[in-house]
Amino acid sequence: MGAMKWWGWGEEGVAFTHEDKPELAPFIERVLGLDVRRPGTPALAFERLDVPEPNLPEHLRSALEEAVGADQLSTDPHDRIVHGRGKSLRDLVRQRRGDLGRLPDAVVRPADEGEAAALLRAAIDAGAVVIPFGGGTSIAGSLEAGPDEARPVISVDMARLNRVLEVDATSQLARVQAGAFGPDLERQLNAQGWTCGHFPDSFTHSTLGGWIATRSSGMQSDRYGDVAELTRGLRVVTPSGILAVRAVPSTSTGPSVREMVLGSEGRLGIITEATIHVRRVPPERTILGYLFPTWGAGLAAMRDIAASEASPSVTRVSDARETALSFATRKTPTLVDRLKSKALQTFLKHRGVDPTAMCLSFIGYEGSADYVAAQRKLTERIVKRHGGLGIGRSPGELYDQKKFDTPYIRDFLLDRGAPADVSETSAPWGRLQAVYDDVTAAFSDALDRLGMRGYLMCHLSHSYHAGACLYFTFALNPSGDRDALEEYGVVKSAIQQAFVDSGATLSHHHAVGTEHAQWLEEDISKPGVAMLRALFEGTDPGANLNPGKIVASCLDPGVGETLAGGESRDSNGRAGGPRHTVDAHQGSQPPA
Amino acid sequence: MGAMKWWGWGEEGVAFTHEDKPELAPFIERVLGLDVRRPGTPALAFERLDVPEPNLPEHLRSALEEAVGADQLSTDPHDRIVHGRGKSLRDLVRQRRGDLGRLPDAVVRPADEGEAAALLRAAIDAGAVVIPFGGGTSIAGSLEAGPDEARPVISVDMARLNRVLEVDATSQLARVQAGAFGPDLERQLNAQGWTCGHFPDSFTHSTLGGWIATRSSGMQSDRYGDVAELTRGLRVVTPSGILAVRAVPSTSTGPSVREMVLGSEGRLGIITEATIHVRRVPPERTILGYLFPTWGAGLAAMRDIAASEASPSVTRVSDARETALSFATRKTPTLVDRLKSKALQTFLKHRGVDPTAMCLSFIGYEGSADYVAAQRKLTERIVKRHGGLGIGRSPGELYDQKKFDTPYIRDFLLDRGAPADVSETSAPWGRLQAVYDDVTAAFSDALDRLGMRGYLMCHLSHSYHAGACLYFTFALNPSGDRDALEEYGVVKSAIQQAFVDSGATLSHHHAVGTEHAQWLEEDISKPGVAMLRALFEGTDPGANLNPGKIVASCLDPGVGETLAGGESRDSNGRAGGPRHTVDAHQGSQPPA
Repeated sequence: MGAMKWWGWGEEGVAFTHEDKPELAPFIERVLGLDVRRPGTPALAFERLDVPEPNLPEHLRSALEEAVGADQLSTDPHDRIVHGRGKSLRDLVRQRRGDLGRLPDAVVRPADEGEAAALLRAAIDAGAVVIPFGGGTSIAGSLEAGPDEARPVISVDMARLNRVLEVDATSQLARVQAGAFGPDLERQLNAQGWTCGHFPDSFTHSTLGGWIATRSSGMQSDRYGDVAELTRGLRVVTPSGILAVRAVPSTSTGPSVREMVLGSEGRLGIITEATIHVRRVPPERTILGYLFPTWGAGLAAMRDIAASEASPSVTRVSDARETALSFATRKTPTLVDRLKSKALQTFLKHRGVDPTAMCLSFIGYEGSADYVAAQRKLTERIVKRHGGLGIGRSPGELYDQKKFDTPYIRDFLLDRGAPADVSETSAPWGRLQAVYDDVTAAFSDALDRLGMRGYLMCHLSHSYHAGACLYFTFALNPSGDRDALEEYGVVKSAIQQAFVDSGATLSHHHAVGTEHAQWLEEDISKPGVAMLRALFEGTDPGANLNPGKIVASCLDPGVGETLAGGESRDSNGRAGGPRHTVDAHQGSQPPA
Repeated sequence: MGAMKWWGWGEEGVAFTHEDKPELAPFIERVLGLDVRRPGTPALAFERLDVPEPNLPEHLRSALEEAVGADQLSTDPHDRIVHGRGKSLRDLVRQRRGDLGRLPDAVVRPADEGEAAALLRAAIDAGAVVIPFGGGTSIAGSLEAGPDEARPVISVDMARLNRVLEVDATSQLARVQAGAFGPDLERQLNAQGWTCGHFPDSFTHSTLGGWIATRSSGMQSDRYGDVAELTRGLRVVTPSGILAVRAVPSTSTGPSVREMVLGSEGRLGIITEATIHVRRVPPERTILGYLFPTWGAGLAAMRDIAASEASPSVTRVSDARETALSFATRKTPTLVDRLKSKALQTFLKHRGVDPTAMCLSFIGYEGSADYVAAQRKLTERIVKRHGGLGIGRSPGELYDQKKFDTPYIRDFLLDRGAPADVSETSAPWGRLQAVYDDVTAAFSDALDRLGMRGYLMCHLSHSYHAGACLYFTFALNPSGDRDALEEYGVVKSAIQQAFVDSGATLSHHHAVGTEHAQWLEEDISKPGVAMLRALFEGTDPGANLNPGKIVASCLDPGVGETLAGGESRDSNGRAGGPRHTVDAHQGSQPPA
């Protein structure tokens, strides 16, 4: 793997391009008024960045070196910059501008649990802040120190803890170190015939520990379960010692400590190991494409599949706008493709389907040949009932190959000055259409107020018994009148606010961090936030562990006054990390 | 439903008898040396009980009456006694002896969330203790006030909050008040074609809120999910207001507040409402009987079924000792039964199966006729591979009809002076045989040390991807040399200790309360206990909410010194409720 970009997604040398996709540039021009054929503006050159000296007192440095070895403590500028933030849109824009935020003063790389415990002890003794770092792909602002953090800040890079320690074939469980990246984890498991089956969009660049700390979901979670389901045992280095959660299938031992670690974003300790579900690599695995006449029909089909006796491994349906983008992103088609496509159009017209309302869907099946055939039969009966049409294997295969490349598109658009981002939520089946409508209206309304163009699209990405995840993607063409990040903030806030106002959740699998913290109270209610606060403050009395994430801690330096003010929208206060770079206008109201 | 027994399980007038089961008395005589045909010794007469006056200051009484209405506050002795404890073996023995423990000073019955909030406020203002009460079937000591509790104690009976408020057919969710008893809940749902599908052994006498507060599992949880899975939304009256958890299918909003309420045993607040999964009543539902040649074969079959593509609704297999009891509990057989039974014996002999090693299994199937047939085919292929033999519908039907009557057997045995109890756990598939062997050895060893007879049996009751629940039942014939409760304590402790020593959990679905609290730290580790303590103390700073359960609170009056002593086995300290009536010998060591 190449070096991690300090200014964008993924690794140096990998980029998205429109050049082999003839319909894409015209499409973007049409919907956003943006000419992507113009040369882009890259990030500032690394050499021009202004990197402050690290604040690393000698006694802390030597204690950390003792803990992890001198060669595993780094104060190198590139290391500090890469570990200073995640990859949220705000993060990328500010990095490109050379606004680096509160950089960590050192990056340490423990080799095992013992070293992690020693470094945490050293940091607490020195009154320093510790921020665990997996793959650094957080898009919720979970990794940056508070802007006014006066204490030394230590980023703990977990990448050396990358081994599958043991596979218990009888129990279908694997003990895995938390720093293992997705591809490395799967490679080690596949070598023994097993898979974990967790494939988030960030898969290539994220780690098991990161998935756990954010309550991640993967593309095939309908079958394998979200990370909260597939994680059974845990080992976590905490201020009061090693938290060891036994890998039992279910337990009644009071409120679930296992579930407290899930989504804890480093606030309770450093996750060093997990015992996770594994399954035999399935004999067959296929993702098929379908078209639904309308978004409503697609949603209804997914709902009926979830309520049925069918168990597909992937259920996904895009709205008409996302479908249009998918079709526009095809590579130069062959003559055969063109003919097929023409035949499809004729067929659709014949059936009375409006091609502009059409919704592309992917449904996956996994298991033995018999099982796959049976699931497919059950599922397709429901698809057909809702006017759906099978379009074969190739769209699904293409999606399957390309799914981890999507985040690179953000950098492509940012090069051209256009912010693009995602917001995802979940809601009961009966609320999904209303959530979708509310978000769409909030987005349009925000654009109107700002006087700018934008494009919003959505897909349903995960189905459950009682509801589903809606995953929105949007791109903006800034007006040029204001800071693009400020305009982005208005739109992003409008979407998030529509989530909580319409009864959905602030995030299905991207976590809270600092960027979603202002909606937490509206989602889980004031007593819910108080419970989280009690847990964090009681477990980490010195507020050494990634303070200010999820909820602002009363113990966080400098936050007290803000909280006393009592404005719930600002309850994340000054510890809210990324928000210090945008001005006072960002909120649900447009600038005057 | 009749009045609740103050001295035993269930309702007055319902009892278990051996008289219509000709083989039972000889069986018990053989394995325990106990003659159940001798007349039993009933509990003390109610009139002979010594009931202390309630400690209910006038200002608290009027505030509570204002909250719930004067007619919904009771200081009636029977009410206070019935609400003073659950139904653990210790509870029943002490009740029978007239040792009533720290009775609540009043029982209040709120009609809705508003009344629950008002009474909690009144109690906190008066410095009183509040203990929520559902069906009162706890067998972990979750309901009794600490023996030295000096503050007024209020039992909050939730039975008036018994309605299904709304069924959202599209989302397959129902909003239900927490005080609804199992049969009432199912009746209301069935009337609209729905089922919740949660059937714990306590079903008839327990409530939705109680299931949630203990992380209950039901007989068909393999299909419907444990209560932790099927509970999505929650409303809980807490000291800082109404905790409202949205009924979303999955969420990434920090550590799960929903999962904090599950298993909270009243320590975080009063659960007033939940939004739960419902499913259409299935067209077909069947439970079939199977016989396995050995316990090992039965375990292996259940494990292979869990790893397969089959999805039965019930997976249960009893060990040889429990199988022997099942056969001995049959009612007077008809001639046809005798002939069938004889044919079966012959068949088994022919197959070379040792009838004394034979293990009875029940496997359930639910859904459409096609689905049931497909699941059965997949499952029976695995059963056969492990030497299992289908024995048809009647054993399963009998089990299904009688499953809620089992707890009455404890009273039948207690009438004859024999303590009987259950202990259940869960562990990964690969550990189950070792857990079973360790528990069996610990039980025998305890009996040897005490010089008494006892009978231990076990079944696997729930299967998961990575493990299963083992449910042990034991009966003792006290030696007569010591207090029977003391001897029981030695045996119960030996079993629980074997659970945690062999890597299993202290309870799969019966919760912690006070009776399992001493093993909590060995199960979830010291930092895990500290996290629970932080959550409870931060949420309930006055320790008004069911103090001393799960973990002793540092704020509990009188507990500080014990904790300072630092003995982890005694960390539940003086707040540990029920333990004050047994003498110092109860622990893992036998009396000298």
